Amino acid sequence: MTSRGLFTPIFVPEAVQDAVSDEAWLRAMLDVEVALSRALTAHEIISPAASTAISAARPDLDGIGVAARDAGNPVVELVRRLRAAAGEHADAVHLGATSQDVLDSAATLVAKRALVPILAELDAVVAGCAALAREHRGTEMAGRTLMQQAVPITFGLKAAGWLAGVAGARARLRELRLPAQLGGAAGTLSKLGDDGPAVLGAFARELGLDEPVLPWHGDRRPVAELGAALAIAAGAVEKVALDIVLLAQTEVAEVAEASEGGRGGSSAMAHKHNPVGAIRARTAARSVRGAASVLLEAMAGEHERAAGAWQSEWRALTEALAGTGGAAWSLHEALDGLTVDPERMRANLSDDLRGEPTGAADAFIDRALELE
Amino acid sequence: MTSRGLFTPIFVPEAVQDAVSDEAWLRAMLDVEVALSRALTAHEIISPAASTAISAARPDLDGIGVAARDAGNPVVELVRRLRAAAGEHADAVHLGATSQDVLDSAATLVAKRALVPILAELDAVVAGCAALAREHRGTEMAGRTLMQQAVPITFGLKAAGWLAGVAGARARLRELRLPAQLGGAAGTLSKLGDDGPAVLGAFARELGLDEPVLPWHGDRRPVAELGAALAIAAGAVEKVALDIVLLAQTEVAEVAEASEGGRGGSSAMAHKHNPVGAIRARTAARSVRGAASVLLEAMAGEHERAAGAWQSEWRALTEALAGTGGAAWSLHEALDGLTVDPERMRANLSDDLRGEPTGAADAFIDRALELE
Amino acid sequence: MTSRGLFTPIFVPEAVQDAVSDEAWLRAMLDVEVALSRALTAHEIISPAASTAISAARPDLDGIGVAARDAGNPVVELVRRLRAAAGEHADAVHLGATSQDVLDSAATLVAKRALVPILAELDAVVAGCAALAREHRGTEMAGRTLMQQAVPITFGLKAAGWLAGVAGARARLRELRLPAQLGGAAGTLSKLGDDGPAVLGAFARELGLDEPVLPWHGDRRPVAELGAALAIAAGAVEKVALDIVLLAQTEVAEVAEASEGGRGGSSAMAHKHNPVGAIRARTAARSVRGAASVLLEAMAGEHERAAGAWQSEWRALTEALAGTGGAAWSLHEALDGLTVDPERMRANLSDDLRGEPTGAADAFIDRALELE
Amino acid sequence: MTSRGLFTPIFVPEAVQDAVSDEAWLRAMLDVEVALSRALTAHEIISPAASTAISAARPDLDGIGVAARDAGNPVVELVRRLRAAAGEHADAVHLGATSQDVLDSAATLVAKRALVPILAELDAVVAGCAALAREHRGTEMAGRTLMQQAVPITFGLKAAGWLAGVAGARARLRELRLPAQLGGAAGTLSKLGDDGPAVLGAFARELGLDEPVLPWHGDRRPVAELGAALAIAAGAVEKVALDIVLLAQTEVAEVAEASEGGRGGSSAMAHKHNPVGAIRARTAARSVRGAASVLLEAMAGEHERAAGAWQSEWRALTEALAGTGGAAWSLHEALDGLTVDPERMRANLSDDLRGEPTGAADAFIDRALELE
Repeated sequence: MTSRGLFTPIFVPEAVQDAVSDEAWLRAMLDVEVALSRALTAHEIISPAASTAISAARPDLDGIGVAARDAGNPVVELVRRLRAAAGEHADAVHLGATSQDVLDSAATLVAKRALVPILAELDAVVAGCAALAREHRGTEMAGRTLMQQAVPITFGLKAAGWLAGVAGARARLRELRLPAQLGGAAGTLSKLGDDGPAVLGAFARELGLDEPVLPWHGDRRPVAELGAALAIAAGAVEKVALDIVLLAQTEVAEVAEASEGGRGGSSAMAHKHNPVGAIRARTAARSVRGAASVLLEAMAGEHERAAGAWQSEWRALTEALAGTGGAAWSLHEALDGLTVDPERMRANLSDDLRGEPTGAADAFIDRALELE
Repeated sequence: MTSRGLFTPIFVPEAVQDAVSDEAWLRAMLDVEVALSRALTAHEIISPAASTAISAARPDLDGIGVAARDAGNPVVELVRRLRAAAGEHADAVHLGATSQDVLDSAATLVAKRALVPILAELDAVVAGCAALAREHRGTEMAGRTLMQQAVPITFGLKAAGWLAGVAGARARLRELRLPAQLGGAAGTLSKLGDDGPAVLGAFARELGLDEPVLPWHGDRRPVAELGAALAIAAGAVEKVALDIVLLAQTEVAEVAEASEGGRGGSSAMAHKHNPVGAIRARTAARSVRGAASVLLEAMAGEHERAAGAWQSEWRALTEALAGTGGAAWSLHEALDGLTVDPERMRANLSDDLRGEPTGAADAFIDRALELE
Repeated sequence: MTSRGLFTPIFVPEAVQDAVSDEAWLRAMLDVEVALSRALTAHEIISPAASTAISAARPDLDGIGVAARDAGNPVVELVRRLRAAAGEHADAVHLGATSQDVLDSAATLVAKRALVPILAELDAVVAGCAALAREHRGTEMAGRTLMQQAVPITFGLKAAGWLAGVAGARARLRELRLPAQLGGAAGTLSKLGDDGPAVLGAFARELGLDEPVLPWHGDRRPVAELGAALAIAAGAVEKVALDIVLLAQTEVAEVAEASEGGRGGSSAMAHKHNPVGAIRARTAARSVRGAASVLLEAMAGEHERAAGAWQSEWRALTEALAGTGGAAWSLHEALDGLTVDPERMRANLSDDLRGEPTGAADAFIDRALELE
Repeated sequence: MTSRGLFTPIFVPEAVQDAVSDEAWLRAMLDVEVALSRALTAHEIISPAASTAISAARPDLDGIGVAARDAGNPVVELVRRLRAAAGEHADAVHLGATSQDVLDSAATLVAKRALVPILAELDAVVAGCAALAREHRGTEMAGRTLMQQAVPITFGLKAAGWLAGVAGARARLRELRLPAQLGGAAGTLSKLGDDGPAVLGAFARELGLDEPVLPWHGDRRPVAELGAALAIAAGAVEKVALDIVLLAQTEVAEVAEASEGGRGGSSAMAHKHNPVGAIRARTAARSVRGAASVLLEAMAGEHERAAGAWQSEWRALTEALAGTGGAAWSLHEALDGLTVDPERMRANLSDDLRGEPTGAADAFIDRALELE
């Protein structure tokens, strides 16, 4: 089996896997150490040569995870190796910082980077919904409430509603603050004397992250807000996927996902044609909810660094990012090849509903399209 | 026992209980029907006399819950009674609307109203943290990471961190959009012809709620965002409460909650003095997390009205509001009577840590106080 | 509005509401105090007259919840009132016990009593599934995987699968250990000298509860196991309800819930006929999951009595019991009036699937019926 | 970085990682196909030569995950490759089975195998608690309720309570039914004619798994029960870890984890000595709770195979097993090197509590030790 694994590739696209991989976390941690060295250099706390050496260092990263057991986090070992690689500038490495500074800043950095492909997938979903809303402005279908036919709507309006949900969740992800973290051993930056706040500002700028009001080792909102926003984005995606699965039922058959090349096939039944993109999207979205619950629980941590709650964020955040990206990607795929059957939509409409007005459907579509 | 109940009064203050009570929901539902009638009158769809009659109607509300079983929601029965009370104007009642319009608009209205006492409690918590931050700017204490003493901080800095967390969560609650919902049977407002969007706008203004881009029967972000923001606010409160409980431990004894009148006493041990406000805050916060998980799961609902997911929001939202208000109220109480023992804080500091600098503590306190 | 409330009656039947009400908790707490007095009398620690006085005491229960705020639990106030009511025997009240003993024993007692109507509803569900399995042994229908028609099954087999799930969850609920709790201030029963374990045994027998190996103030498995078993029972019920909702879709129409007297009607559309029992069951089941997550989190509590985790169990356990009972009750109602349309089942079967064999369906039905 | 990764090795031991790895899942899936072929041979449905060929086949497993996207599960691709590897016996491969049969049986097989190292770690935890209970039978310490000193207990009693919790959770894991799954396309085993149930029995025996009453494609209790039992085991472990973290606080200092070789050290502070095993155990336990919530939600799946719920089980189950094993392993490590300071325990006891009786502590220890 390739290193990509067995289940992950089914539910998470390469770009998102890469962005949240262990390698990405390590890369981010090293970037954090480099950014710190530059901020320290800018404030003349360490020499330019030291910063250059730290930037140039290429520590061996093999086996860091196993070596991290005794400390309970990988930074202690990473710093040890980075110091070894920095030679005479070892003392300048990690100066003023603590493990949590590196991991928290790496977490927001990983998130910022992973949001690029995640938002790209959400963009594609929004565009897909918008295309359907435009194309099917006049496609009459049953509105269904409590799983029963209610009054007619248009498929364009349904897609416009999907669009609004996903676009709204996307807007929230875009506006989230992703702060750098730098507090030193307990949030005072005591080793940096009066320069602490200024170094924090420079450090954040180096990383392209937001500058926090104060160190957030004990205030886990950045991670919890992110977890919640990801769960909501995944939920908005999941809603669309659920509707597709329902519309694709054999007895409804109003939409179908693409099936070229055996896509959506079964190991036992040749005639089957499963809405596999939507199913994968629903699967991935559920994992985000589980991860978000871990992140929300982690807000209540002890004192200046929690003994368990903090550490639980690393894998949960990774999972929340992966799952959201995966859900959006799978839904994107489902929408891309979606066959819509307007005839069937009309035929499915109960006789007594056919020809009823669809009221403000068009007006609402126009309003939703502005969110695109 | 009074109708206030056995457990609820321990964890939720009267003002919040009132704001999320069944009576408050019914009042909100009636307000929604009245607002609808006014919006319809403004667009000359029903007569001013009809709107007046609907406003003046006082339907019997007894036993609505039991009568609501056959419909699975209370609006059908409420509308029946409201029509009976509206006499000749019965046909004008609920015109163009569906059950979900009334319940969803009532939900955001209940939330908007409940946020008043909830935000007032959060304000009090923020003010309490700010007062501590100011007063204990120079109070040296141990910074503790992984439950071990790390380097010195000041209690003022600790309180500033609490402040930042709660103030940030409060800001998010304040900025949430709370939209009205009006879509008719399946989101098209088909019974209102071309007036649909305009009536929706007028309806939202009548209620003092936000106007949505389009009906959100299938896009549950308003409720999910609210649930998430409440869970995060509860989490920010819980973090403070946890720190208080830890600082109040017999062996630490750096803070104590007020104990006049037997507060914090035990049924078995006269000498005990429990941090009961903080404990109650932690309890209430946990219930919010459970409720928020229900709200996040409810995002994935079927078609134009979900068959189970939607209905699960009513009690979960009620619980999330009650628990957040309760957590803030209990923490407010804990902070109000908090005794801080600077001598003990200093004495607890390990010898090798005493006198170490506290770096940017003051600067960070100043920055946090701007959030007050 | 009646005291029964607005939403609760829709989702929880009277018998279960009564069994988990605040009054039921108070009754259980008083029963616990009485049982303790009898166990103490049996070991000659207090006099028979004291026990008789405690049994006969009728303390005023009004306003206990509000009065419980200062202690953070209602037992301190309840004991104060019970002592007042016990007159000269006041000292014998609550002797050797602590608040947690009373609340934990009351919790398992409330659960034991609530399980009677809950299990009765589950019995009815099992019987309903069994009746369908028997009646529709030969009713051919589409087996559906990933929401697509796969190969034919019988409706009897489908009902047999439902039966197996609910009967299995019921078996787990029946076998759960529900222990009494008696440990005194910190689990040593120190006030009872050498008689502690014997009193614990007698106390458990008085309550009809299991005797624990040792006090479980710090080992919350009894409550967590109960929460998990309830969530699983609710999940088994929810699965059936989901299938019913899907089969009742307008386009599938293979089953329908009873509709006499306007049941399942809509506030906006006369033609609608909603599967309201199944919808209510799905709603109630979701609340159990939220509550169970609170109970599982509560396992990690501090030392000999947790400061927040323990207290969070009271309302979560109440909700988990109510929701499970409500889910089973609503599904029972759905099954009771279920109309099954074998003709439609056959007609819905894709042409290429009709007439295919249904293999071991009958044999599996027979095996499942043994679980009834 | 090694393939072991960055975070996983910190929290999960090799033996458990191996048991739940993608390779382990693939191995289990192949074992399932082999077991099926043997059961089919035993019933003369395929030839002994075919079964031998299937057993001997070594299909290329590289890239299965990526290739599985189009089907949404890896079995379709695995079967394709296995058929290719089976040459002339291709038709005998996977005969009568469907993807879910293979994945569900693999899931219980993976669980059964992973429970071996998980239970071994739980055994070690139980043994560690028992040793402490025996050794510290007479070690007086403060009982602490609501984080305040209450009355004296012994450390032996505390450890006995830990033991009871973990041993009870272990007993539940041991008694869980782990059934094989074989139902064919929709649960009828239609391709096996009358032999279906007998083949199912033989298949289960081949795998050493329990035989289900009927196929459980729609009855997800086996997985949900497992998830709940793992969450409860993790919770029991977490409780002990929380107590250790609290007892190891600088100001309490009644226990300390082993510190040889820099274990528990800090990246910023040489004097620190963190209870790293307990912290890791708390971290791992939290991930189990998140995964269990996914598994409980997955119970409500559509018809004969769910479109999203089912698929969400694979990674959640993997995570639940890994986290429980990791929590137990880390706590095992914490207990193994635990230094207990009876002098400090006595010194911490408030003066007014010293010398008070510890009642039934010894008797309860004896009772708990029988659970070992």
